[in-house]
Amino acid sequence: MEKRELLYEGKAKKIYSTDENDLVWIEYKDSATAFNGEKKAIIAGKGRLNNEITSLLFSKLQERGIASHFVERLSETEQIVRKVTIIPLETVVRNAAAGSFSKRLGVEEGKPLSKPLVEFYLKDDELGDPIVTDDHILELGLATKQEIELLKEKALEVNAVLSSFFAELGVRLIDFKLEFGKDKQGHILLADEISPDTCRLWDMETNEKLDKDVFRRDLGDLATAYENILTRLGGR
Amino acid sequence: MEKRELLYEGKAKKIYSTDENDLVWIEYKDSATAFNGEKKAIIAGKGRLNNEITSLLFSKLQERGIASHFVERLSETEQIVRKVTIIPLETVVRNAAAGSFSKRLGVEEGKPLSKPLVEFYLKDDELGDPIVTDDHILELGLATKQEIELLKEKALEVNAVLSSFFAELGVRLIDFKLEFGKDKQGHILLADEISPDTCRLWDMETNEKLDKDVFRRDLGDLATAYENILTRLGGR
Repeated sequence: MEKRELLYEGKAKKIYSTDENDLVWIEYKDSATAFNGEKKAIIAGKGRLNNEITSLLFSKLQERGIASHFVERLSETEQIVRKVTIIPLETVVRNAAAGSFSKRLGVEEGKPLSKPLVEFYLKDDELGDPIVTDDHILELGLATKQEIELLKEKALEVNAVLSSFFAELGVRLIDFKLEFGKDKQGHILLADEISPDTCRLWDMETNEKLDKDVFRRDLGDLATAYENILTRLGGR
Repeated sequence: MEKRELLYEGKAKKIYSTDENDLVWIEYKDSATAFNGEKKAIIAGKGRLNNEITSLLFSKLQERGIASHFVERLSETEQIVRKVTIIPLETVVRNAAAGSFSKRLGVEEGKPLSKPLVEFYLKDDELGDPIVTDDHILELGLATKQEIELLKEKALEVNAVLSSFFAELGVRLIDFKLEFGKDKQGHILLADEISPDTCRLWDMETNEKLDKDVFRRDLGDLATAYENILTRLGGR
């Protein structure tokens, strides 16, 4: 396959077109950002770690019957995925209170929720990704009622697979963010990435944070934490 | 009826017990607050205006079959209501974009919504009254699924009555906030107040704001705006 022009450069990835119309070429970058871009750094190895982890997790999900845009890992920092139009919603699944949930609602971090909870956030940097209800999504015309239900269902399926997979590796999946897109036929596909950038992952024994909170909260070396996750996943 | 000890003093009202166990005595104060108490003022006449307007609106709703805690207006600044335990949720109904909806979601103020939209906010000054989804309400144990549906239904009923009532008076009901409580038997009753403190009311011709935004945004004299509403309602 041939890499062609740059279609889009985000905070963590570059996306290129290819000679195949339905496929795009993704390059993971070494940049880390938090707090809506206010905190930034270049962290050597981060692109590789997130590419490897995302490739492993999407493969794991596909084994378990959960389709995504993922096609194949190309190199340490590159993968091929199906081209989709991203639905401008961040779908968050929470198994325990943490981050903005804890802060907004005054619930202690780490407190298990009575059942997995799905939230949606408007993907809009200028507005600071505000949380939205189903009715907001409908009013803003971002998805239909049926699509909202589908996103919730898919998100909970992903959660069931990943929670038990990480548990086997001694890791607690506290929460994570998904993005979905529509392919040319209008089918909704899991997209973006699933990595310590988009998940909260705590060591089950020690509660050590093995995710982007290490960077957000200056808790240590991000690459070491992500490497820990990659190693547990059996990656290189 | 006899007024007894002060049970609670809020930002806008004092609540006293009475010699009747199920009834409380409410005194409306002249204080105005906004932005979670950051902006404060004493505005002569405000207590009277909100007491009169709330009494008229709760009476109107009762005529139309919508029960509330309201029992009777006692004086210019006082009323008797049934004692309830307030459910710690603010139920907001929006007919057009304004205020936090516009700001959070980037929608122009005054834009009509495709249909009335109900939102819930956690009634918690320390947390700044964050918006919550149905799932948050369930997780926090603030109401059951059935109760949430009941609150939405009742809020939309109130909206239907008040929107057309205000329209007859040349006023556009942009949005409003309701509170509900449970009486001794556990029945959910509309409670608190309905006034220009808790509604956005715009003159239909001029879009002049006749509500607390006059105070929040320094648009003129609050008492004059509220008096305008009271006069249109046929009050003294």
